[in-house]
Amino acid sequence: MIQVAVNGYGTIGKRVADAVRAQPDMNVLGVAKTRPNFEAQAALDRGYPLYAAVEERADQFDDAGMEIAGPVEALVEAADVVVDATPSGIGAKNKTLYEEYDTPALYQGGEDADVADVSFNARSNYADAVDADHVRVVSCNTTGLSRVIAPLSETYGIEKVRATLVRRGGDPGQTSRGPINDILPNPVTVPSHHGPDVNTIFPDVDVDTLGLKVPATLMHVHSLNVTLETAVDAADVRDLFAGEDRLFLVSDEFDIDGAGKLKEYAHDVGRPRGDLWENCIWEESVSTEGRDLYCFQAIHQESDVVPENVDAIRAVTGAADAEESVETTNDAMGIGL
Amino acid sequence: MIQVAVNGYGTIGKRVADAVRAQPDMNVLGVAKTRPNFEAQAALDRGYPLYAAVEERADQFDDAGMEIAGPVEALVEAADVVVDATPSGIGAKNKTLYEEYDTPALYQGGEDADVADVSFNARSNYADAVDADHVRVVSCNTTGLSRVIAPLSETYGIEKVRATLVRRGGDPGQTSRGPINDILPNPVTVPSHHGPDVNTIFPDVDVDTLGLKVPATLMHVHSLNVTLETAVDAADVRDLFAGEDRLFLVSDEFDIDGAGKLKEYAHDVGRPRGDLWENCIWEESVSTEGRDLYCFQAIHQESDVVPENVDAIRAVTGAADAEESVETTNDAMGIGL
Repeated sequence: MIQVAVNGYGTIGKRVADAVRAQPDMNVLGVAKTRPNFEAQAALDRGYPLYAAVEERADQFDDAGMEIAGPVEALVEAADVVVDATPSGIGAKNKTLYEEYDTPALYQGGEDADVADVSFNARSNYADAVDADHVRVVSCNTTGLSRVIAPLSETYGIEKVRATLVRRGGDPGQTSRGPINDILPNPVTVPSHHGPDVNTIFPDVDVDTLGLKVPATLMHVHSLNVTLETAVDAADVRDLFAGEDRLFLVSDEFDIDGAGKLKEYAHDVGRPRGDLWENCIWEESVSTEGRDLYCFQAIHQESDVVPENVDAIRAVTGAADAEESVETTNDAMGIGL
Repeated sequence: MIQVAVNGYGTIGKRVADAVRAQPDMNVLGVAKTRPNFEAQAALDRGYPLYAAVEERADQFDDAGMEIAGPVEALVEAADVVVDATPSGIGAKNKTLYEEYDTPALYQGGEDADVADVSFNARSNYADAVDADHVRVVSCNTTGLSRVIAPLSETYGIEKVRATLVRRGGDPGQTSRGPINDILPNPVTVPSHHGPDVNTIFPDVDVDTLGLKVPATLMHVHSLNVTLETAVDAADVRDLFAGEDRLFLVSDEFDIDGAGKLKEYAHDVGRPRGDLWENCIWEESVSTEGRDLYCFQAIHQESDVVPENVDAIRAVTGAADAEESVETTNDAMGIGL
């Protein structure tokens, strides 16, 4: 069993912990947290040993009546791999801790690419991360773009990708974020950081991205244009997408008009936390005009990277090749709507 | 003086009436309305003769203590030109009325293109509408796209336009519209109707558009990509845009991040109703990658077509050529931020 530490038990960390626990070849050794909030209590309720991420604050957990198993250092030392799911920028600061104990580490996409040896998307470049010590699982949006680019690039060849990312302003729990009643170019400069981030996975793909923020919390939506090397029928692209486990083709008959109904569907089929690990691509939107492919896809910012983290754990520990890992992850989590 | 009738005194009609009144060569003969609501009272307060758009409802105005000058037929008969600013679909039904009295008519962009002899944008094809009997002023979004396409096409040549329109869900007063907290592909099929609508102005421009709706009411925002026929410096495009009266280049120093601050600025400079008749293009966003031009522009759906209606009045009456009309309209309204 691969012994996994999860450092940071927020939006991503708690989901990764549950996904790791569901795997046949992994064990959650413990989770580390800075503060004794509702998530810390939920971690204990789920039976995860809880470690104090900041030693000086360990007393706060005592005061809140939450039992601490030890300092994060002990967790990192004992683990085969640590998943750093701390807020953006903290991961880079934690790197020396992981190096000190020689524990391979995964970072999230909010960190700069140079924190790691490899930026990772299971569908696109799993092999690059095998036996690497520091691997960065790219962000939700870059993950969503990579999963589409990989099959299109392999099957048709890509001349250029242009994507407008209509981003949710914040997650449902991030009550201090905006905007309210506005549509903000964000960043206002072009390209947004997402294009260069895609190039950490696909160095040779020509990609320009534009980002906006809107008053929504549930999911991002991408307006995607891919100029292919040859003209293609939309039906063929739909078939191609339908063959990808982490792409969910939302059929016309489902009558799903946006993220609200997508999340409702996820809850209805019993998904934990209503998570949508797959890109949700509206089948009707998949269209071609000559070599130009267009589609809309919704990306669940809280969860699409979770199976990617699970696969990255197997990559850095050399536990499986891409095909075996992705199949195991998908089966254990129930991926494939 | 050109005697102008305004049939429909809602979002567009009331603005067109005020803009017509501001012109040195036009007079508002009267405005027609179906119901005696707050806008009808405001029309009377502004001194516009009020006509009943539906004869059977004329009594309702009496009951509300609002004086009616007569039925809409009398207004149409007496006018040199009628601006139909009724809700989408009603304009087409009114066409026989305008034909009956042989009064040239302008329709709004919500009508199908075939309601009119010509679809109109002052910057792009003013001459086509000269002396036409039925002219359709294209929608706010098509107007916004046309104003950018015209100078780019003339100066550099256009290979292809791709635009994602992030649309406000409804106007501030449209309280029964959505979405709340969602991002909806709308229409989910590609292309949206906007691309074909642009082709009513530019038949030869290759243009694909995608539309979404979001929980905002103030303005639309376009994420725009134009592949030009030659590589161009972004600075040159900014200069080109800066020379266009109906394009407002939002400078970095203004620190305007979205529609909220744009509207605030419009109010601060004394614009009636906080209207933004110009496309609001973020200067920082104007970028080029080889032949690909990108930018963000905000489009005020309630007002950008207003000066276009004024110009179309001069076109159908043969009162001025494009240059003279646009200059007169801009001076009278104070266009050019």
